[in-house]
Amino acid sequence: MTDKAAKRARFEAAWPHIRDELIAYLPTLGMPAEAIEWYRENLNYNVPGGKLNRGMAVVDTAEILNGVALDDDEYSKAVVLGWSVELARSLFLVTDDIMDATITRRGQPCWYRAPGIGMNAINDAMMLESGIFFLLKKHFRNQPYYVDLLELFQDTAYRTGMGQLIDLITAPQDEVNLSKFSLDRYRLIVIYKTAYYSFYLPVALAMHMSGVPASYMLGGQTVEPYKVALSILLPLGEYFQIQDDFLDLVAPPEVLGKIGTDIINNKCSWCVNTALTLATPEQRSVLDENYGRKDAAAEARVKEVFEAVGLREHYAKYEADVYRRLVEMIADIPEGAELTLKREVFTSFLDKIHKRTM
Amino acid sequence: MTDKAAKRARFEAAWPHIRDELIAYLPTLGMPAEAIEWYRENLNYNVPGGKLNRGMAVVDTAEILNGVALDDDEYSKAVVLGWSVELARSLFLVTDDIMDATITRRGQPCWYRAPGIGMNAINDAMMLESGIFFLLKKHFRNQPYYVDLLELFQDTAYRTGMGQLIDLITAPQDEVNLSKFSLDRYRLIVIYKTAYYSFYLPVALAMHMSGVPASYMLGGQTVEPYKVALSILLPLGEYFQIQDDFLDLVAPPEVLGKIGTDIINNKCSWCVNTALTLATPEQRSVLDENYGRKDAAAEARVKEVFEAVGLREHYAKYEADVYRRLVEMIADIPEGAELTLKREVFTSFLDKIHKRTM
Repeated sequence: MTDKAAKRARFEAAWPHIRDELIAYLPTLGMPAEAIEWYRENLNYNVPGGKLNRGMAVVDTAEILNGVALDDDEYSKAVVLGWSVELARSLFLVTDDIMDATITRRGQPCWYRAPGIGMNAINDAMMLESGIFFLLKKHFRNQPYYVDLLELFQDTAYRTGMGQLIDLITAPQDEVNLSKFSLDRYRLIVIYKTAYYSFYLPVALAMHMSGVPASYMLGGQTVEPYKVALSILLPLGEYFQIQDDFLDLVAPPEVLGKIGTDIINNKCSWCVNTALTLATPEQRSVLDENYGRKDAAAEARVKEVFEAVGLREHYAKYEADVYRRLVEMIADIPEGAELTLKREVFTSFLDKIHKRTM
Repeated sequence: MTDKAAKRARFEAAWPHIRDELIAYLPTLGMPAEAIEWYRENLNYNVPGGKLNRGMAVVDTAEILNGVALDDDEYSKAVVLGWSVELARSLFLVTDDIMDATITRRGQPCWYRAPGIGMNAINDAMMLESGIFFLLKKHFRNQPYYVDLLELFQDTAYRTGMGQLIDLITAPQDEVNLSKFSLDRYRLIVIYKTAYYSFYLPVALAMHMSGVPASYMLGGQTVEPYKVALSILLPLGEYFQIQDDFLDLVAPPEVLGKIGTDIINNKCSWCVNTALTLATPEQRSVLDENYGRKDAAAEARVKEVFEAVGLREHYAKYEADVYRRLVEMIADIPEGAELTLKREVFTSFLDKIHKRTM
């Protein structure tokens, strides 16, 4: 087993315990067996089974900040925070899938389309969210950073909701209108809807857990490490999503593990937004007439325009630029004694993302 | 203007300021004008316009605990907590209305049925929730009881979600099955789905704000005032809901302000649950065949059974019993110096509820 596979296996092995902690609370409140079974199924169906990148990022970051391997208590704290991030992700997915009328998720019907669930999925999502705060209370109530954890999850939920709102306004399910799209709007959606919870949240949680203070002096300079982390992780998250959008267009399905559907689904993707900035009036008309149609021929016409405007070259240039910029920003982080931010937190992310193919 | 109307007017007058605080945050994050307008409409449509009993209960309780009139700072704190409770209520209503397929609310279409909203209402509900934590952070971050406020809202949301879950399991939209009903199940639903957030939450918030400690000694006795409050407010909330269910059946629409629809909508109401404990096998068959049908004749047959089993007398007996029991529990509260619980907190609730007709 590789080191990476072993890390993942250890993280996954913690899930049944965390799930059972969540479930064990219900009988203490007198909940009937049916409700307990329902919650168990909600947790089993929605929380594990993804790539777990976000959850494992908490553990990875805590290990890097700690310098040496985490002891059992530190590991178990990091893993609770990691699965709390996965709970947050699962509640966003459950609700987004209803709002976007998505059909399948992780190779099975979306939760709201599973037999007998329907709109109860909304309450189930709220119970996934409550599970986060239950776990934080149980494991962190006596820690000096407890309130920071609560605020981080709450602030992140607010920002993610704002990202979802602008996405829903910009690319509604039932109406294709490319004049609402722009790269600026795209960036705003990506940063709020994805980057905060996928990149900043796991790192900031691990920083609090590791005792990184709000500010410290290093080499005569005041460092605000959470601001530094944000300033790197938001563009990193944007890069990740742009790459995701590009892979949806160009990656072979057998490598990507799914067939790209962004064009057909009227997604406010980096590809269409970049093409809009490059298209001639004729190409623009082709995009207006064919984007977001549930029709393979229309999709093919959009792809032709994407090729004609040189999207692949633009992506290559974007990726080279953002990579260089991120490397520079990371190199600028002042490194020092214990309890300070470490460059490796960010290089480990960047290395995982740079040039990935799936 | 009566004292009560003046209190209500003052509470309502605070809303536009609180709403504008919530809205003003979005431009600081670079949100586009459309998103800001959407959030404003979400807040305007869903938060004010109800009876505001829950929100005003925070202010009333804080005034009682304070002994003398609140100063401006105290009043403004109480009012922020009060509107936070109304935000919580509005998010529960927005999501419950989707799950219950409700058509209208407060004389207008439910938010998810308003033009152009649809399932975006789910995200809107989540943004109402985030608004609560934004307000708490803004107004209470430096208070020693800040974390208590956060936990109170989070614990309450979890319990309310559990109540909604057992309600959805017990009385699903598309299936009438009275064998799932029972008075025990009914009590569990009412306590979790309604009593925690409508009764305990406002009082406990006001207690924290007023500095009531987790426990104190009085007359040689240890008092745990939050436990005392819970032990009275949960049965009080149950009484309120039972009364609500009874009024849905018997109150003249011109007094109640709406036409009762619990029978037609397969509600797990006190009336049907009590009738089930009293019905002969023949009456039970009538209930099985007619409850929850969208049909006035079926509704009339159910009402006949309710009269035949003596539901009005049972209600009168229940109300007399619970009233006596609550009066006794309240009289048992040890009263003392400042910062202790006061009986009037509960008598003021009980007086508002007892023998109400709407």
